[in-house]
Amino acid sequence: MRQAIELSRSVLYVTSPNPRVGCVIVRDGHVLASGATQRAGGPHAEVVALRQAAQAGIDVSGATLYVTLEPCSHHGRTPPCADAIIEAGIGRVVVALKDPNPLVGGQGMARLRQAGIETESGVCAEEALDINPGFMSRMTSGMPWVWLKTAISLDGRVALPNGQSQWITSQLARDDSHHWRARSCMVLTGIGTLLGDDPSLTARAVPTERQPVRAVVDTRFRIPETARLLDGGPVIVFTASDDPAKAERLARRNVRVIRISELNGRVDLAEMMRWIGQNAFNEVHVESGGRLAGALQQAGLLDELLVYVAPILLGSGLPLAALPQLEALSQACRYEFIEHAQVGTDMRLRLRSAERWQVLRQAVLAS
Amino acid sequence: MRQAIELSRSVLYVTSPNPRVGCVIVRDGHVLASGATQRAGGPHAEVVALRQAAQAGIDVSGATLYVTLEPCSHHGRTPPCADAIIEAGIGRVVVALKDPNPLVGGQGMARLRQAGIETESGVCAEEALDINPGFMSRMTSGMPWVWLKTAISLDGRVALPNGQSQWITSQLARDDSHHWRARSCMVLTGIGTLLGDDPSLTARAVPTERQPVRAVVDTRFRIPETARLLDGGPVIVFTASDDPAKAERLARRNVRVIRISELNGRVDLAEMMRWIGQNAFNEVHVESGGRLAGALQQAGLLDELLVYVAPILLGSGLPLAALPQLEALSQACRYEFIEHAQVGTDMRLRLRSAERWQVLRQAVLAS
Repeated sequence: MRQAIELSRSVLYVTSPNPRVGCVIVRDGHVLASGATQRAGGPHAEVVALRQAAQAGIDVSGATLYVTLEPCSHHGRTPPCADAIIEAGIGRVVVALKDPNPLVGGQGMARLRQAGIETESGVCAEEALDINPGFMSRMTSGMPWVWLKTAISLDGRVALPNGQSQWITSQLARDDSHHWRARSCMVLTGIGTLLGDDPSLTARAVPTERQPVRAVVDTRFRIPETARLLDGGPVIVFTASDDPAKAERLARRNVRVIRISELNGRVDLAEMMRWIGQNAFNEVHVESGGRLAGALQQAGLLDELLVYVAPILLGSGLPLAALPQLEALSQACRYEFIEHAQVGTDMRLRLRSAERWQVLRQAVLAS
Repeated sequence: MRQAIELSRSVLYVTSPNPRVGCVIVRDGHVLASGATQRAGGPHAEVVALRQAAQAGIDVSGATLYVTLEPCSHHGRTPPCADAIIEAGIGRVVVALKDPNPLVGGQGMARLRQAGIETESGVCAEEALDINPGFMSRMTSGMPWVWLKTAISLDGRVALPNGQSQWITSQLARDDSHHWRARSCMVLTGIGTLLGDDPSLTARAVPTERQPVRAVVDTRFRIPETARLLDGGPVIVFTASDDPAKAERLARRNVRVIRISELNGRVDLAEMMRWIGQNAFNEVHVESGGRLAGALQQAGLLDELLVYVAPILLGSGLPLAALPQLEALSQACRYEFIEHAQVGTDMRLRLRSAERWQVLRQAVLAS
C-alpha cells in the first residue's frame, strides 16, 4: 500500500479535479504491475495497472490489488474500474479509503464482493487522506481544502510599512512554493495584491502540464484590463459589483466573472468557497496580503498555512493576517505544525487546523 | 575527536567561566581513558582522563591524546595540563582548537613539541568552536557571546496589545529554553519584563548544579526590592542612576549594582557588554521584551536568536524587537537559520549572525 501511496503522490499535479490514486498488483510479495490515475478523462490507476499487466502478458488472476481509493462502480468519463478488476480475475482488493463520492459510496466494494473478490479497507487511510484532502473535503462537505501561502520575516511581517514585499524570502523559497501552486486546482489572490504586485500566479518553477485556474477576490471589480494575470489562461473574478461591459470584454479573454453576495463590504467568502467546491475545485492555494488572509481566517475558511520564514527582522510592517484585536491569548487562532524544513536560507513551516482536519478525517473514515 | 567533542558537550552547564573541553586517550583505535573539564577550580579534561587511566593502572605512554582545546601551559587555579601530558609519556596530541587565551597562545603546543611529542591541530575545529563561542569570543574580542531568547506567535507577536504574554508557547517549550539558561553564564532581562512579569529567571527545568548569574538592565534603577529575582542568589543591576542607599540595601542581598554610562536615554549597552566580557561571563542569555531586544539589535550586540514559535495567529500585538522603520528590505537585520526542531506543539528556531560568526571563526582559527 505504501508503494501505491507513493504512486498517488507522483500524480499530485495531474489528476484535478479527480483524486490522486495509486495502484499496485502483487502476487507472493512480487509486484506484477502498478499505475497511477492520469489526467481527467484518462484511465484511473487500477486500469493503468491492469493494462500494464495485460500488455506485458502477465497473468493477474487471483493476485492482490492494492489501491489508495475504492474502485469506482459508475460510468463517468471512463468505464467502472470495479468491472475491469472483476474481468481481470483479481482475487483480493485492499483499499486505503472508501470513496466518499456519493456516486460510489461503498458500491465499488460491494460489486467486488458480489463477484467473489475478497476485500479489505482502511489500510494507510490517513496517509491516503493526506494526499487528497481537497477531493475528500469536497465530497463530504461540498467545500474545497484551502491553504494560505505567505512569506514573512522572523517577526511576522509580510511587507515593510511602505508596502515593499519583493522579496522577503529567497528565490529558492519562492520557487519551492510553486509546488503547492501546481498541486492546487485554483490559485486565489486579493485585489490588493493584484494591484500592488501584478503577479501572474502561474506554476512556473516546477514541471507541470496542468496549470491551476487563477482567481481574484475583487469586490468592486477593479481588476485592470492590463493585469499580467489576464494572459489568456483561464481566470475567475469573484466580485459583488456589476459591470456587464467589462465582464463581456474579459469573457473574450477567458475570464469568468462570478457574482457573489456582499457581506461586510466584501465578497461573502463562505459563499465564494461554496461556489468553488460546487465547481469541482478540490484545493485552493491562497496567495494574498494580510487583509484577505485575515478575512478568510475570521470566516473560518483556512484549513492550512504554508509559511516561508526569512531569517530577518523588520521591526514594523504589514501583518501576516489583519485580525481584530484580542483581549486574551485563549482567543488566538490556533493551528498545528505538520512540517518544518529549511529551504535555502529560509524556513518552510506548514500548519493545519487540527479541528478542521478532525472533521474531515471523521467524515471520510466514517463513510 | 568526535567523542572528545561529545564529552565537552556533556559539561555544557558546568565549567563557566572556563571553556567546555573533552579529552580522549586512544591506542590502536581503543579508548584507554577519557574526561571532561570539571567546575571552575577543578581539574581540566586532560587531567581527568590521565587520572582515570592512572587509577585503572592503564599505561598511556606513547598513546594519542585527543583534546578539544590546546592544553594549558600556565599555572591558573590548576597546574599546567601540558606538564601532566608530558609526564604521562603521551606520544601524540591532537587538538581541535588552539587556545586563544593570551596566557596560552600556542605555548601549550610548543611545550609539548619541545618535549618530543608529535602535535596536530585544527581537527573538528568548527564543532569545537560551536561549543565554546562565548569563551572564544571573550578571548579574541573581549566581548561575550549573546543570544536573545524569545517566544512569538506565528505572526511575530511576543504579547497582545494589552501586554498579555503568559503564555504564548507551551510549558514544554518554556522548559526547553531552560537548557539555554543553564548553559549561559548570565541571564539578562530588561526592567520592563521585570516589572511586568516579575520573573525569577533561574534554570529550573533542567538538572544543573550551577546557576547563571541573573542581571537586569535598569537605567533608572527602578527595580522593586520585592522583586522575585532578589531571592538571595547573585544578581547584577546595570544602571545609569545613582541611589547609594538602595544599592547598599541590595548589596546585603547579594546584588551588585554596576554603573554604566547613559547613551540615548538608556544604559550604554555596548559598554555594559564590555563589562560583562571583562568580568568573565562567556555566554549571555537575554530574555526580554521587544524594547531591550530592539536596542541590543540596533547596537549590533545580538549574536544569536533562540526563537520559540507557537502555532497561533494574534493579529496585532507587541513586536519581537522594536526597531526603527525601514524604507527598503535590503536594510533588514539578517541572520542565518542554524537549527529547527519541533518542541511539543511549538517550533524552536535558532538563528545566528553570519557576519559575527565569521568574525569569531576567523579570529579563532587564525590564532
